[in-house]
Amino acid sequence: MITVALPKGALLKDSIRLLQSVGLDFSAFLDSSNRQLQIQDSNNIAKALLVRAQDVPVYVEYGQAQLGIVGYDVLREKKPKVANLADLKFGSCRLSVAVKASSPYRSALELPAHGRVASKFVNCAREYFENLDLPVEIITLYGSVELGPITGMSEAIVDLVSTGRTLQENGLIEIETLFESTARLIAHPLSYRLNSGNFYQYIEQIRTAIMSPV
Amino acid sequence: MITVALPKGALLKDSIRLLQSVGLDFSAFLDSSNRQLQIQDSNNIAKALLVRAQDVPVYVEYGQAQLGIVGYDVLREKKPKVANLADLKFGSCRLSVAVKASSPYRSALELPAHGRVASKFVNCAREYFENLDLPVEIITLYGSVELGPITGMSEAIVDLVSTGRTLQENGLIEIETLFESTARLIAHPLSYRLNSGNFYQYIEQIRTAIMSPV
Repeated sequence: MITVALPKGALLKDSIRLLQSVGLDFSAFLDSSNRQLQIQDSNNIAKALLVRAQDVPVYVEYGQAQLGIVGYDVLREKKPKVANLADLKFGSCRLSVAVKASSPYRSALELPAHGRVASKFVNCAREYFENLDLPVEIITLYGSVELGPITGMSEAIVDLVSTGRTLQENGLIEIETLFESTARLIAHPLSYRLNSGNFYQYIEQIRTAIMSPV
Repeated sequence: MITVALPKGALLKDSIRLLQSVGLDFSAFLDSSNRQLQIQDSNNIAKALLVRAQDVPVYVEYGQAQLGIVGYDVLREKKPKVANLADLKFGSCRLSVAVKASSPYRSALELPAHGRVASKFVNCAREYFENLDLPVEIITLYGSVELGPITGMSEAIVDLVSTGRTLQENGLIEIETLFESTARLIAHPLSYRLNSGNFYQYIEQIRTAIMSPV
């Protein structure tokens, strides 16, 4: 039996809809009274784990789930050893550099050397500024990164932006985009090579479903 | 003006009640419709930031908040450069090693060498098993750590336990305690030494309030 790791949060609804279109029903996870983290689909052909987005590639990397759905942003940040099988086209957002709208900075290179950048995406942020050859101090935050510039702790942030509403509400503006992100279908490399549990069939069905959205 | 960093989640209510008892009212953060991350108390004598528990010591370390309230567990895991001023006596919990109740393990030393331990507290877990001289692989998870042993990804977990209900519901049992944790009052070391903004007065009032709980 195949196990799929699904991410809590923004990508969950579209992930479940996509799997439904290939005959795997995990809609029980959308029930607000649900407390289970592990369910079987109604036809008993597959299992799903409901985990934090950052944990999806962990379960797939260790083979506890053969398939997973997760944002490209998580794959870029964590660099897990998983096979990236398909762009699922939903969950569009971008990882951006943002600063206070009232600051003088309008590009990353204008940021002061040895300034501070707050982010949850510390690896992506570090790599980006290293490539620019701009030495900055990266401050790791776990939530509400926009407070970094607001409180004066950091000149800039590197954070995910989808509608841009949070930035706007907090008087921040985007000045650079590191990369665009969408949801991805990932797989445990060995399970993929062995084609255990009719693996290819599901992957092909999912690929077809993305091409012809409902 | 003093700024206090307050943790979202389990410690928030008691933190706000404690500060109210010394004349600082941040109860607006408890309003479920509140979206603000920064507020002033009603007498305009102090400001508060509402941030993730793990971010509290960051704002205090960088001096954006002079005071903060955070669990001892976060201080042990992150080892921030902050002054640990007082044990606030609420938010009791413990960091424990837990395994499946059906497993043969009843102490940490019985765990298999080169086994796997899933945790959000990777530094605490690593240090603990190093002190036991037991080589294990630590798997970083961000949530629902109990899925580690349930899915068979790890033999054990290191996680916070308060009532023990989550463990029980998932068929897990505690076999060791790394340390007990409670909420702590922390301060920016320099602000503390300089006694800016009537610092000592608040700290003394908080210490007195803990001695004589309402």
